[in-house]
Amino acid sequence: MFEVHGYAAHDDHSPLVPFTFKRRDVGATDVHIEILYSGICHSDLHQAHNDWGNSTYPMVPGHEIVGRVVAVGPNVKKFKVGDIAGVGCMVDSCRTCESCERDLEQYCLNHTSFTYNGTEQDRKTPTQGGYATAIVVEERFAVKISEKLDLKAVAPLLCAGITTYSPLRHWNVGPGQKVGVIGLGGLGHMGVKFAKAMGAEVTMVTTSPGKIEDAKKLGADKGLISTDKDAMAAAAGSFDFLLNTVPVSHDVQPYLSLLKLDGAMVVVGALTPLDPIAGGLLMLPRRTLAGSAIGGMAQTQEMMDFCAEHNIVSEVEVVDMASINETYERLVKNDVRYRFVIDMATMPKG
Amino acid sequence: MFEVHGYAAHDDHSPLVPFTFKRRDVGATDVHIEILYSGICHSDLHQAHNDWGNSTYPMVPGHEIVGRVVAVGPNVKKFKVGDIAGVGCMVDSCRTCESCERDLEQYCLNHTSFTYNGTEQDRKTPTQGGYATAIVVEERFAVKISEKLDLKAVAPLLCAGITTYSPLRHWNVGPGQKVGVIGLGGLGHMGVKFAKAMGAEVTMVTTSPGKIEDAKKLGADKGLISTDKDAMAAAAGSFDFLLNTVPVSHDVQPYLSLLKLDGAMVVVGALTPLDPIAGGLLMLPRRTLAGSAIGGMAQTQEMMDFCAEHNIVSEVEVVDMASINETYERLVKNDVRYRFVIDMATMPKG
Repeated sequence: MFEVHGYAAHDDHSPLVPFTFKRRDVGATDVHIEILYSGICHSDLHQAHNDWGNSTYPMVPGHEIVGRVVAVGPNVKKFKVGDIAGVGCMVDSCRTCESCERDLEQYCLNHTSFTYNGTEQDRKTPTQGGYATAIVVEERFAVKISEKLDLKAVAPLLCAGITTYSPLRHWNVGPGQKVGVIGLGGLGHMGVKFAKAMGAEVTMVTTSPGKIEDAKKLGADKGLISTDKDAMAAAAGSFDFLLNTVPVSHDVQPYLSLLKLDGAMVVVGALTPLDPIAGGLLMLPRRTLAGSAIGGMAQTQEMMDFCAEHNIVSEVEVVDMASINETYERLVKNDVRYRFVIDMATMPKG
Repeated sequence: MFEVHGYAAHDDHSPLVPFTFKRRDVGATDVHIEILYSGICHSDLHQAHNDWGNSTYPMVPGHEIVGRVVAVGPNVKKFKVGDIAGVGCMVDSCRTCESCERDLEQYCLNHTSFTYNGTEQDRKTPTQGGYATAIVVEERFAVKISEKLDLKAVAPLLCAGITTYSPLRHWNVGPGQKVGVIGLGGLGHMGVKFAKAMGAEVTMVTTSPGKIEDAKKLGADKGLISTDKDAMAAAAGSFDFLLNTVPVSHDVQPYLSLLKLDGAMVVVGALTPLDPIAGGLLMLPRRTLAGSAIGGMAQTQEMMDFCAEHNIVSEVEVVDMASINETYERLVKNDVRYRFVIDMATMPKG
């Protein structure tokens, strides 16, 4: 066991404060990563505040982690000291169930160990996240990152990136397809970049006219204002695929209407109840509504390699560790384009 | 033009009454079918009563039609006089759009001519359905029926049959899969027969314990009472595919929970709004909710051939034409196992 410095929430309403805690020693297949950057996901804030009612404290948030490998266990095959590595939303799973065997550890049938606000495979030891100077993780749950990429802007790929990349791949998005990305935030801006890089014609679907120009800078071909009834009617039945990144409960029916025969909309943002959907909208023509959660580790590596090949990173604003509480306030106001990343070199030393 | 006898609704609240009307002369690619049996679909009642607000009168309902070919146009290739033919929910479509080119005329991008309460391709001439002594239809919109089958029990295949067969095929249901059929009515009882014949393990999912034995007689392997919370919890995450035949608005969430990773539920009954669905239920694990409407003509023929091969027909109760209004009353009370069929020989002659 060794000491690391971090920031933690200690209850559902107080600010995050400096917190010194222990990581496990490096096991045979573990890598020890000195954290360089840690992205701030909106779910960090929800969990710090116990918005989902499942929070345990003290909690060190953070599941968009980029760092340098400083030690490896004797049986580690994928990494050597000095490599750049990333850790996302998971640090372990049973590794033996049907889902894990299919490299879909996020859907582990036994127990996915989430990176923080979770427990290790013993279902007792709490996990602690990336707002910290270091992490130790089994090599299967770390990905290799090309040094060619701007590392601070890589961190959000570990959650916002894979959450959007995975459904685009699963639903075979590619050239010749019309793809809509609904919502332009941390998830949506990655959805635009990936869908474009995969060869699709990309439309930003948003309530905010001002966001269309922003989306075009990220690669979108077109914009569609979802509150413009005429424009929505004109676009009805024209999309092959919609990536719905709206993070709150909403009416998905106007978006479903945009899908053509056999078109699919995948929800990646809203965990909460969607407004009622008329069965007829799914039937005529045959349409699909589906969900998707992050992505497995093999696909996360595939995404990282795709990003290196296509020079894709997130758009980020780097913040200091000590500003975390003010940064959360800005996040609540959506005052970010499109993701905050903590520079871990700014961690106050014990 | 020639005269046929039928039964029609003349407004949204009066009984159906005898109605003499005209069919078009047999065109070059038309077949003239003397109707032997006409199934009664619940949608006949909804449309006769203008429950969907789109009814036009006079209306001769009926879109589950089986009869004998008594004349064919000079360019007809598929039929000869004496053949048994069936007509379902459609009598025409544009035949040239992307959907029609894919043999999915029910999703015609221009105008599907529904068998009744619709219009021909001129979008003016009303169509009239199968509660009548004869129909004239373009040969593309008729299917060949094996005389080996019990013809009165074949009629419901034209709507209830194809509505359930099509999604089972589209979603590749087959051996090694666990399939649930939700609801045991006109649609559900066909879903059980088809899923079983396709090689799946079939579970009847119902609120009514009494229906499980009935479903087993039709081929179901197991039953699951959807109001039994313990049984539902034990079955969570275990189904590959669910065919949801519930005809009214309802909460699909308990059923979604039954699906395993990448499992799909297809709604074929409820056109109206489904209760709110938590996005998280679609995300964890990755699940799909889709819709499906009847099936294209090529697939309807495929289904008829499948039925001949596997000796599959509907379970029917034959009624007289003159009893139609009493029969509708029994339908409202669900007093049918599982489909009423009118014997057209009982049509009162004008």
